[in-house]
Amino acid sequence: MSTTQRWLRGAFHELSPAECRALLAKKSVGRIAFWTAEGPSVLPVNYVVDDAGEIRFRTSPYASIAQYAGGAAVAFQVDEVDDFTQSGWSVMARGVAEVVLGARSKPEPEPWPDGVRSVQIRVRPESLTGRRVLGH
Amino acid sequence: MSTTQRWLRGAFHELSPAECRALLAKKSVGRIAFWTAEGPSVLPVNYVVDDAGEIRFRTSPYASIAQYAGGAAVAFQVDEVDDFTQSGWSVMARGVAEVVLGARSKPEPEPWPDGVRSVQIRVRPESLTGRRVLGH
Repeated sequence: MSTTQRWLRGAFHELSPAECRALLAKKSVGRIAFWTAEGPSVLPVNYVVDDAGEIRFRTSPYASIAQYAGGAAVAFQVDEVDDFTQSGWSVMARGVAEVVLGARSKPEPEPWPDGVRSVQIRVRPESLTGRRVLGH
Repeated sequence: MSTTQRWLRGAFHELSPAECRALLAKKSVGRIAFWTAEGPSVLPVNYVVDDAGEIRFRTSPYASIAQYAGGAAVAFQVDEVDDFTQSGWSVMARGVAEVVLGARSKPEPEPWPDGVRSVQIRVRPESLTGRRVLGH
């Protein structure tokens, strides 16, 4: 380990937009944060990033995501953390969530839960930020 | 596997408040969602649950969490997901985040990043909800 790497241990390091895009494309489950009548909500969803770099997932028309996130400013977050080494990274995309009617993305997101998941939501990242921390 | 368990595969199952409390106490990293001037934010933090069942973590006085979350309605979320079996659970606590001055919790949260993390934040869960999904 070089002096530079030792120096960075325990410190936050900002990720570049290219690193954020690569990490976002690599994961399959993220969390969407949106505002509801009962306050803020954070829910995990499985998603895909389409050819245009947009985040897409499907949900039930009766879910709170469909009810509140459509047309609203949301944050979409992915991370990976390791308790043992106390290391990890987190990437957050901010944008407006839109309900997609008709048009389908490639690849198509396949929700884990069964049942009617007929609402497709897409989030075009307007900002993409991330950081990592190295353990002690 | 019984018929009942097969029936539940791929279906959401709501978790009881006791299950939510147990899962929240078991994890060490969660995500706090709060509103900033730039829109919603979701950031991972390492935390402890104190004897009173409150979520506590430390942050820098210059962090966006310290700037925006204090006194605000927030959501605190933990989860565990398994891509291979497409199974997982998620627990969300909602409450008002408070900046703690002076008084210390037991155990004391120890932030992973170095540097001045002198602001302790506490969230008393006003609502605690969770669900799990079993894979296919």
